[in-house]
Amino acid sequence: MEPTSTKLITRWAAAEPMRVEDELVVEEPLEIRVGQQSLIVVMRTPGHDFELAAGFLYTESLITSGNDIEIIAYCDADVTETQDGSWSSLENIVNVQLTEALNFDAQSGWQRNFHANASCGLCGKMTIESVRQQVSPLNSGFHINQGVLYQLNDRLRTAQSVFERTGGLHAAGLFDETGELLIVREDIGRHNAVDKVIGQALLSDLVPLERHILMVSGRASFEIVQKALFARIPIIVAVSAASTLAVDLAEEGNLTLIGFMRGQSMAVYTCPERVFRES
Amino acid sequence: MEPTSTKLITRWAAAEPMRVEDELVVEEPLEIRVGQQSLIVVMRTPGHDFELAAGFLYTESLITSGNDIEIIAYCDADVTETQDGSWSSLENIVNVQLTEALNFDAQSGWQRNFHANASCGLCGKMTIESVRQQVSPLNSGFHINQGVLYQLNDRLRTAQSVFERTGGLHAAGLFDETGELLIVREDIGRHNAVDKVIGQALLSDLVPLERHILMVSGRASFEIVQKALFARIPIIVAVSAASTLAVDLAEEGNLTLIGFMRGQSMAVYTCPERVFRES
Repeated sequence: MEPTSTKLITRWAAAEPMRVEDELVVEEPLEIRVGQQSLIVVMRTPGHDFELAAGFLYTESLITSGNDIEIIAYCDADVTETQDGSWSSLENIVNVQLTEALNFDAQSGWQRNFHANASCGLCGKMTIESVRQQVSPLNSGFHINQGVLYQLNDRLRTAQSVFERTGGLHAAGLFDETGELLIVREDIGRHNAVDKVIGQALLSDLVPLERHILMVSGRASFEIVQKALFARIPIIVAVSAASTLAVDLAEEGNLTLIGFMRGQSMAVYTCPERVFRES
Repeated sequence: MEPTSTKLITRWAAAEPMRVEDELVVEEPLEIRVGQQSLIVVMRTPGHDFELAAGFLYTESLITSGNDIEIIAYCDADVTETQDGSWSSLENIVNVQLTEALNFDAQSGWQRNFHANASCGLCGKMTIESVRQQVSPLNSGFHINQGVLYQLNDRLRTAQSVFERTGGLHAAGLFDETGELLIVREDIGRHNAVDKVIGQALLSDLVPLERHILMVSGRASFEIVQKALFARIPIIVAVSAASTLAVDLAEEGNLTLIGFMRGQSMAVYTCPERVFRES
């Protein structure tokens, strides 16, 4: 499936309606299964679905390493049983087969654990307390030159392909300490874009990302900080504002959270000591 | 709780860091309970929590009318049992007491039904098929003058209070057919802003909203169209793009979906016949 799709719409300009072809962002459900058990359905833009599944499992701390994954594949078994009429493609179901020991755990514990928190990870299952119990704060060893940060926005925008055409996608980018863009992913959901980036890093054996920077288009919420913490990313840069809970969690985790990155100005919400000025 | 909160941050401008007070959007978890049973946790901006709970239940078709609700209240029982350290306020748990018959159903059926769809409502539980089974398409009787649509953007912006200060909130507004703004709500989650608007309308006995227009800041996703359909709103206007699945569902539901509303131009994705030109 492509990330965009063309539809015939009516464009209305200066009181004149006109039928035109328009390119829209594709939004489709993706069901993530673990050991053939349904774990969650996310609304996402198709593409990099295996990375999305891997990143989701990792940033929700259902796995702790890429080695926990044996196989990720689109589902081609039992589809008629679970599919309703609108699920048009087998490419909307991904199954993650974990190593044997973990799959056994999945049967008994995960589903319960996942739902016991009263909700799914995409709408705030985790509280600061539960994140604190699962990950230790980042250490302070990593520093970054302000000049590197100033370049990130342009580099992410240049790499965004679909967004430019449709105006409908969020982007997430992973940069190294020199400001080089290593991975960029786009999705209708900001959290999905982040999961795809971290999932790609996980499958490429790059985690923990202790000397990396995560940049997101738009805002920084609690969820984005949570995901970065699990991947041990010390710096998050957002184009727009951060929420109170994002700042609180970043503070707890000793993570540098930066918002409103525009040109040479930015709002450093937490741990500004990681940013040093050019000499 | 206030929708914004002040934090000390480091503003970095032209290579000069400076400690300043900044106003941030508050993001906090809200647990919605039905008959004291936990249904879901959403990350939301505090304020209008009862409307949010009512709107959520309604637009997820767990209730069909405001009369189904007996009482909505913040929880003050059993809090120590369920609260972990980070849930700082009783105002983060809302309990909805339904009429007796419905509460009985809730025990046996809802939780199961809710989770049987593999996910929560906020990340795409519903497919077009399941929405189609639950609501009939809108009728075509309602029409709107293009001149009315052109005014909505400015009116919504004028009414947005918090957004202007923090740049961190989504807004949703309900307009009548003359373009008068009846209800406006802001939230860190667009779907929450819509639930708050529809919940307020529900509690004010305004639903079904068959002669109304829903406007949202930002994009129109599947979820927004789903919520509007349940409230019988015939026209959605978004400031930014619509997704493919949003357009598909709008088409199915005979709902007029408009995006990129800027000045006197707009993209009418579906049912353009509801918009007539000024004579």
